[in-house]
Amino acid sequence: MDVDEFTAKVTKQGSLVRQLKKDGAEPDVIKAEVDKLKELKVELEKLVASVDTGVKFDRDAFDGMLIRKFFVVPSFEIHGGVAGLFDLGPPACGLKANILALWREHFVLQESMLEMDCTNLTPHAVLKTSGHVDRFTDLMVKDLENGQCFRADKLLEDTIDNLLDSNPTMPSSERDSHLLVQRQADAYTPTEIDVLLEKYDCKSPEGNAFSKSFPFNLMFKTTIGPEGTSAAYLRPETAQGLFVNFKRLVEFNAGKLPFAAAQIGLGFRNEISPKGGLLRVREFCMAEIEHFTDPDDKSYPRFKLVKDKVMTLFSSENQLSTGKTEVMTIGQAVKIGLVDNETLGFFLARTQEFCERIGMDPSRVRFRQHLKTEMAHYACDCWDLEIKSSYGWTECAGHADRSAYDLTVHSKATKTELVATKHLEKPIDVEIAKVKHNRKELGAVFKGDQRKVANAIDALAENWSDFEPWVTKLEAEGKNTIEGFEVTKSMFTYERKTKKVQERKFTPSVIEPSFGIGRILYSLLEHSFDVRKDDEQRTFLKFKPAIAPVKCIVLPLQKDKCFQPIVEGIKSDLMSRNLAAKVDNSTASLGKRYSRADEIGIPFAVTVDFESVSVNTVTLRDRDSMEQIRADIGSIVQLVEDICKEKTTFEEAQKKLGGLGANKTVTVENTGRGMFSRPAPKE
Amino acid sequence: MDVDEFTAKVTKQGSLVRQLKKDGAEPDVIKAEVDKLKELKVELEKLVASVDTGVKFDRDAFDGMLIRKFFVVPSFEIHGGVAGLFDLGPPACGLKANILALWREHFVLQESMLEMDCTNLTPHAVLKTSGHVDRFTDLMVKDLENGQCFRADKLLEDTIDNLLDSNPTMPSSERDSHLLVQRQADAYTPTEIDVLLEKYDCKSPEGNAFSKSFPFNLMFKTTIGPEGTSAAYLRPETAQGLFVNFKRLVEFNAGKLPFAAAQIGLGFRNEISPKGGLLRVREFCMAEIEHFTDPDDKSYPRFKLVKDKVMTLFSSENQLSTGKTEVMTIGQAVKIGLVDNETLGFFLARTQEFCERIGMDPSRVRFRQHLKTEMAHYACDCWDLEIKSSYGWTECAGHADRSAYDLTVHSKATKTELVATKHLEKPIDVEIAKVKHNRKELGAVFKGDQRKVANAIDALAENWSDFEPWVTKLEAEGKNTIEGFEVTKSMFTYERKTKKVQERKFTPSVIEPSFGIGRILYSLLEHSFDVRKDDEQRTFLKFKPAIAPVKCIVLPLQKDKCFQPIVEGIKSDLMSRNLAAKVDNSTASLGKRYSRADEIGIPFAVTVDFESVSVNTVTLRDRDSMEQIRADIGSIVQLVEDICKEKTTFEEAQKKLGGLGANKTVTVENTGRGMFSRPAPKE
Repeated sequence: MDVDEFTAKVTKQGSLVRQLKKDGAEPDVIKAEVDKLKELKVELEKLVASVDTGVKFDRDAFDGMLIRKFFVVPSFEIHGGVAGLFDLGPPACGLKANILALWREHFVLQESMLEMDCTNLTPHAVLKTSGHVDRFTDLMVKDLENGQCFRADKLLEDTIDNLLDSNPTMPSSERDSHLLVQRQADAYTPTEIDVLLEKYDCKSPEGNAFSKSFPFNLMFKTTIGPEGTSAAYLRPETAQGLFVNFKRLVEFNAGKLPFAAAQIGLGFRNEISPKGGLLRVREFCMAEIEHFTDPDDKSYPRFKLVKDKVMTLFSSENQLSTGKTEVMTIGQAVKIGLVDNETLGFFLARTQEFCERIGMDPSRVRFRQHLKTEMAHYACDCWDLEIKSSYGWTECAGHADRSAYDLTVHSKATKTELVATKHLEKPIDVEIAKVKHNRKELGAVFKGDQRKVANAIDALAENWSDFEPWVTKLEAEGKNTIEGFEVTKSMFTYERKTKKVQERKFTPSVIEPSFGIGRILYSLLEHSFDVRKDDEQRTFLKFKPAIAPVKCIVLPLQKDKCFQPIVEGIKSDLMSRNLAAKVDNSTASLGKRYSRADEIGIPFAVTVDFESVSVNTVTLRDRDSMEQIRADIGSIVQLVEDICKEKTTFEEAQKKLGGLGANKTVTVENTGRGMFSRPAPKE
Repeated sequence: MDVDEFTAKVTKQGSLVRQLKKDGAEPDVIKAEVDKLKELKVELEKLVASVDTGVKFDRDAFDGMLIRKFFVVPSFEIHGGVAGLFDLGPPACGLKANILALWREHFVLQESMLEMDCTNLTPHAVLKTSGHVDRFTDLMVKDLENGQCFRADKLLEDTIDNLLDSNPTMPSSERDSHLLVQRQADAYTPTEIDVLLEKYDCKSPEGNAFSKSFPFNLMFKTTIGPEGTSAAYLRPETAQGLFVNFKRLVEFNAGKLPFAAAQIGLGFRNEISPKGGLLRVREFCMAEIEHFTDPDDKSYPRFKLVKDKVMTLFSSENQLSTGKTEVMTIGQAVKIGLVDNETLGFFLARTQEFCERIGMDPSRVRFRQHLKTEMAHYACDCWDLEIKSSYGWTECAGHADRSAYDLTVHSKATKTELVATKHLEKPIDVEIAKVKHNRKELGAVFKGDQRKVANAIDALAENWSDFEPWVTKLEAEGKNTIEGFEVTKSMFTYERKTKKVQERKFTPSVIEPSFGIGRILYSLLEHSFDVRKDDEQRTFLKFKPAIAPVKCIVLPLQKDKCFQPIVEGIKSDLMSRNLAAKVDNSTASLGKRYSRADEIGIPFAVTVDFESVSVNTVTLRDRDSMEQIRADIGSIVQLVEDICKEKTTFEEAQKKLGGLGANKTVTVENTGRGMFSRPAPKE
């Protein structure tokens, strides 16, 4: 029975219980059916879990493996560690480097983005302007007994989880209303959440009472310079560095729009009580794109390249109604207006492709639209890439259409024009005010500032719809201010005019795909974790060859001096092609050494045996299929390179070479890139 | 006349002046010869400058170019900027990525190093242990008028510079004594430097009096967690992350020594008054290696691969005597004991090779040994890679033999054993104490801690030479302490014994090559900056193709629709090979467009003309020689790839294809990697 059928069975049993209650049946009868319903729900949960991951996922064992194999370890472990800080050991460091290289190729190179490298230290003024100083906060409550701090939304979520768990027979309409509260937990104001925390009778994890909620700023604060007076923060995102460089970026791009800037770097969040392993950390690698586009034209020529990409979309409407995702092409989603525009749609599809290219399980990838309550007032449309792991669905990348917000606030705060211009095919008429200044009076009143005042009035006059309300107030009240200066009626005269212009000046809209590389890395590790069908004890990591930190292990059949030069030769040949290779010279059996390489995700094993010495051939074993082929050393090394560069696959090579018969030596001729032909096998 | 000859002339004139003074000559006569000497010195300075860089280096113009071409810009410029913080724009960002990729290949991959990625946030305990909290300081003085802070050593250095500049006739012995003080400026204690600042009558840049010198800690401080009680710093170096992970690293390496760990990441220094552009910044990219080795055996098998590398070495002895560098092979330097050991020598030579591979001018690269007064007490030998730029010789990488210092302090502070073991071919005898505990008394006195005390005594007893002084004191005074517990004579008995052991346990020595990537980047930009021989206005950046951020510009001969598909096709072919390419479709002349590409260091230009349309050939222009060759499109793209991957050179291809005759089309066959043959040219 599949999950859908089983779900129907549970629903049916639920209706039966409701009907019995409605009919006023005997308590004993009701209880029996309720018990049955509970059992069914437990079974359904198990079924869902087994369908999701093939086997029940044992996170403790998995985390243990990550530490044991030196993928991820708590930072400063011997000094007691720090919550929310982790170090990447050699295998994860290599994996991350390969993911980033692919990200750079997939996004930066293919879209000719302008990559930058901005500083992590960020002065107060920048983050005050961006809104982070005032609004980059989580609501926090303090345990009144022991002073520990907690996130208010997490407390509410956990309490609702407990409530639902302990009331399996709760009518579904009531259940849904609780879930709705839970889903919006991080969007409430302090007052709203305080009311809810009281309504749900929340207690701190240790059962104590706690304070009213209050905002806690999540940025790490420091000061720059010896005087200690210049406040600064560690950047919470890399984006601001790109916004403040917009003027230079657009110049560098010869003034043309659209274009994108990109940055790979660190972000920092002083999380209140980080849990969730690598998914909620205090220092993390991000890869962000700021795509600057015309707010009146968010079409994207390259959209046609991805329009047929099939996506799993979870619209805001569905989140509040059916709770179900929909599968459709990105072309369709943009056409029906579910995804706001082509540019946003393009990036959603490219992100889906990126996930597939690095080896994420597509059935555990979806795009969730932000609820209206989640989005900032200036944002048009936002979609999170959510990836499912043992922690549930987790945001791993955001795709936000932030409109002109960021450039506008920095422009205002710094009095710097952050605009793009677009040449118009045909000139258009714009309404302006033609201003004539009373230079004498301006000079007398403003002295050295007279030019500043005149320029400010001229700038405003360039657009009649901006100028009219200002000048109307001036005429009504006899005075008005501009850039802090008080201007009176006698200082200028004006005429409303129509002007022909051939270019349009505007503040670009920003579409921002922003990737949490650490979360993607962790999710990929979970998705790559698998066990042999015949032996649950034998685990392996099925990294794609292009992404695997170590590409090939080289194994001598046994400890015999004659193998060493060949083993070392193969290793250096691989390394000279920039393919990370390792040698396992230990005395363990071949099978044991294969398993050890599988466990850390090495896709290929080359084994050097007596035939290698006599006729210069080796076997190549594929981790996933455990199949082997034999060919001469040069061809095998070339094959490993071609597979890692995704020019061919092991299956293709196997088809050409045939499976490996016992004692058969298949020699092949290297005819160039990934091209293998198979002559008659030698006996 | 070359610099050496001119220097001899100046020295001769100097002797003449000294002789005249000694002989009591007429003041007029002396003055005339002194004036002549002054003139000669000015000329010598010019000569040295012209020899150094080909032309007089105009740093203001160069810095202007860096900003204009968006290599490097001040961070947060529109918000007023922050001293010591810079952003890398797209060309420098690409350059840095390529330098790092080569560093990773040259060091990490070739030496099979274990790369890690540790956090920047570092808790107090770790940096207290490493000594940074107490000793990572600069001596600072405060202007008593305006409160500005300055580095005491820089103030002293500047004052000595001024003194020497304004006294060109100062006898050379006196001059040398001032230079010696200047060279040691950053090694003085507060008391010593206060005396010198007074002796030299130093004044703040604005001529004011200033405070006594006091140490200022250069780490950026912050706190972790919502309570604000957990002090932390931004790491001043990446090394500590590797040291605290040593236990896992050595396990990961199957317990074997020597091995190296590596890390590329950020370091932070809250510089007191950063000047010197990219050479002294507050946030910088580092690439560090910690090579763990047996303190009794610092030989290195791979040393033989580099032993003939010729190096420019500036020994500590020469720094204090002749002031001259010596040129010798690294093999010779290790042999005569100038460089302490093979491992250190190996890394010095590899660093030299790295500099050459990325395109640094070898005549502006040297290795300077630390003076005894510069080195920490635990260090054996330290050599800085110094690179000459318009700022003078600057430390760009350090190579320190830090002995066992770092592992020892972390081991002590955390009570964690940070050791390696080495299997001995033959067992050896070690002297130990065999201890018999009085369990009853230990239990009565120490209760739950009795095992801890017994273990501590046992650990000490494993080595007689450690145990003897401790037990001698105990016997003399009747008591002694161990790990904070007071032990008396009656608690144990012991016997001196000899034990056979087959393995040796020891704290490894650390040899640390540490690279400042930002400084290397800036130096490389200066070394790459050149002007056309025939036209000083035409500057270009001669990045090696492997390092260049953009590999190829594609140019249509003119604005004609027929060229566009070919131009776009070439661009995507290049991009699909991961070679960054740009198109310049502007209406500027070809010559102008070549110059623009030269200016930002693009090594190749492919030009699409009418022959491209008719017979599918294009020209390839080499930036440095400005020579061109013509071949079919596929071969040219392949050639660009092969040159960028250093499989061939433009000169080699040119030899095979011949120079480009007017209107001649040379077709070539692609016969694989970098192999070109030239059939008869078509007319």
